[in-house]
Amino acid sequence: MLSESMITAMNVAIAQSGGPTCAINASLVGAFTAAASHPEVDRIFGAENGIEGIMEDRLVDLTERLSRPAELMLLRRTPSTALGSCRCRLPDLNEDDAPYRAILECFQKHSIQMFFYIGGNDSMDTAAKLSAYLARQGSSIQVLGIPKTIDNDLCETDHTPGFGSAAKYVAATLSEIACDSVVYSIPSVTIAEIMGRDSGWLAASSCVLRTTGCGVPHLIYLPEMPFSEERFLDDLRRKLTEEKHVVVALSEGIPLPAASACQSGVSDAFGHSYLAGIGKYLEGVVRRELGCKTRSIELNVMQRCASHISSLTDLQEAEQVAAAAVEAAFRGETGRMMCIKRLSSTPYAVTFESVPASLTANRTRYFPKEWITPDGCDVTEDALNYFLPLIQGEYPPILQNGMPLHWTL
Amino acid sequence: MLSESMITAMNVAIAQSGGPTCAINASLVGAFTAAASHPEVDRIFGAENGIEGIMEDRLVDLTERLSRPAELMLLRRTPSTALGSCRCRLPDLNEDDAPYRAILECFQKHSIQMFFYIGGNDSMDTAAKLSAYLARQGSSIQVLGIPKTIDNDLCETDHTPGFGSAAKYVAATLSEIACDSVVYSIPSVTIAEIMGRDSGWLAASSCVLRTTGCGVPHLIYLPEMPFSEERFLDDLRRKLTEEKHVVVALSEGIPLPAASACQSGVSDAFGHSYLAGIGKYLEGVVRRELGCKTRSIELNVMQRCASHISSLTDLQEAEQVAAAAVEAAFRGETGRMMCIKRLSSTPYAVTFESVPASLTANRTRYFPKEWITPDGCDVTEDALNYFLPLIQGEYPPILQNGMPLHWTL
Repeated sequence: MLSESMITAMNVAIAQSGGPTCAINASLVGAFTAAASHPEVDRIFGAENGIEGIMEDRLVDLTERLSRPAELMLLRRTPSTALGSCRCRLPDLNEDDAPYRAILECFQKHSIQMFFYIGGNDSMDTAAKLSAYLARQGSSIQVLGIPKTIDNDLCETDHTPGFGSAAKYVAATLSEIACDSVVYSIPSVTIAEIMGRDSGWLAASSCVLRTTGCGVPHLIYLPEMPFSEERFLDDLRRKLTEEKHVVVALSEGIPLPAASACQSGVSDAFGHSYLAGIGKYLEGVVRRELGCKTRSIELNVMQRCASHISSLTDLQEAEQVAAAAVEAAFRGETGRMMCIKRLSSTPYAVTFESVPASLTANRTRYFPKEWITPDGCDVTEDALNYFLPLIQGEYPPILQNGMPLHWTL
Repeated sequence: MLSESMITAMNVAIAQSGGPTCAINASLVGAFTAAASHPEVDRIFGAENGIEGIMEDRLVDLTERLSRPAELMLLRRTPSTALGSCRCRLPDLNEDDAPYRAILECFQKHSIQMFFYIGGNDSMDTAAKLSAYLARQGSSIQVLGIPKTIDNDLCETDHTPGFGSAAKYVAATLSEIACDSVVYSIPSVTIAEIMGRDSGWLAASSCVLRTTGCGVPHLIYLPEMPFSEERFLDDLRRKLTEEKHVVVALSEGIPLPAASACQSGVSDAFGHSYLAGIGKYLEGVVRRELGCKTRSIELNVMQRCASHISSLTDLQEAEQVAAAAVEAAFRGETGRMMCIKRLSSTPYAVTFESVPASLTANRTRYFPKEWITPDGCDVTEDALNYFLPLIQGEYPPILQNGMPLHWTL
């Protein structure tokens, strides 16, 4: 047994980045708990607003705060990024190394030996660049990426933490919208606009509703499918001969030729333009062309923050994959992202393994073409079997006076 | 004890009308169960699509179907109107009695002696007119109204079934949106657009979130408050000096001078125009005038159908008030609506009593002026105390394969 004096004390930092999810705080819990279990870890810091907080030396000591189980219980259930997030991209090292130097300075000042970055493909770009810089400087500081995104579009991993809960919220809400859509005796079209800028995973996942015997959604449109207004209207005309009330799951990223008309004109730091109103635009088209009662519903940020109906499987995996990243760091890994690898769908089983973060940086994993039905407006049974395990189990909120409680820094 | 032969057998009909809620099916359960407990009741019919279904003789025999407890368990949790709804207004009897004659014919054909109509103030107009017509015809058929609306704007009742669940969904979702709104380090304004065409009860009820220690919503705007864009911007400027991230609860019915620009131009059968996009409009104003990150979120139909986070108090009262209407009918009442009367807020206690349906028909109960703070952008502690009991308790969905199940006809 090691005596305490033989252990070289070191500190650890964790940060969160990109768009919020319901599971990113479960990953914070997983990374914290795993790090705290190592006796050589002294302090565990959280960085406010992702890598920005490292650059600006805005660290919060979580060591005592998160040592209480009640805090972890609440944090695990709290949506969005408890530490704050950022949309900050590191410049090319050869052009500007100032941010890198600021990061290294912060790490050294606080004796941080391991840095865990929970985020999507932009964040993995940061993890890859930063670990390369540190190695070049001869630093032994390690950087590990922990995946998250409701979009499920990260490469190399079977799926991403945050996605299962978003999928569960979207499908459960669609089942309720379906109940709402059928109440009047006149035919109707309801268009649910679902997040997914580049990939249609989330809109596609609404097919899980079929397992309840509910036919909704009747039509599914993804960015990975060619789209034309004429065909969309033809699909609706056909469906309306079978169903009085048609519900459509529409990915916000569908390649609409007129999409420019729907954009808000606002872009984020990565040059991603904010999409909004494609559903609203098509609502107008359908009302004009088909003349029936038409409604569009934007599920909006609730898709990524509605933690009152989250997937237990998702939250557990978010915690486990983060813990696995910590263990990988203790095995000496750096510059890598931890992945979820599916061993089997029935029975569902996964394992965790790491890949170079650079393999996932700035890349998008698209919904498989072979999971799109030949008519181009639905997904296959294989897709359903892929999605179904990810929404299993519930993790109800802690309520006080009828209201869910959330953890705040 | 009565022998069976001494009981005059009769049938009962129940219908649902107006906009869906999460609790209107609990009222169907309450009316069904109470009626079924009376030995003189033989068949219990549901009318499809409200009074339309009576006029068109579209009745469904619920007697056996709802005799199974499992069906009642599921129906109670199912959002929206399980029997379908309508937005049908009876004409003035002196101008056109054809619909009245069709209704009477249907009642007589099916030996219906009691008719229970679950709905809002338009439906109470139907209940009042129909009972007057029946009395004039010398018919002993009774008509009782059972209140429902998420808007909480029915006169004579302390609150309406359906409202508590909508309030719980809105506030819980706002608490999650609040988590989502604070993640980036730049200041932001988030505008949540909440249902309420004429009255601001639902937007006002979001104040219940304050009991969790969460300051959200920072500003509340109701149709009952005067509104100007200048003042709205001034309120925001002031709040942004106190809070980096401001969340606004905005009723869709605020008296915006430019509101005409936000209307979809579509009206329903009552001439109510569909409001949409007031939040989106003000989002543009705020972004232009204050130059900060701004987002608007329309909570849309989820407010009236998100049964996965409903209020147990609301569902129980919906069932009880419907049962009380059945008992009132058995005491000989007709042409009346059953009300909820609050006896006390702490401890919370209510009783049920009836009023003439004509007193509630076509009238709107506004949010009390005395519950608006002097600065005109918030509500008082009295309002909070009024709302708080209505969102207490949960009634989780029945899930299968991770998805909520719903009852269908």
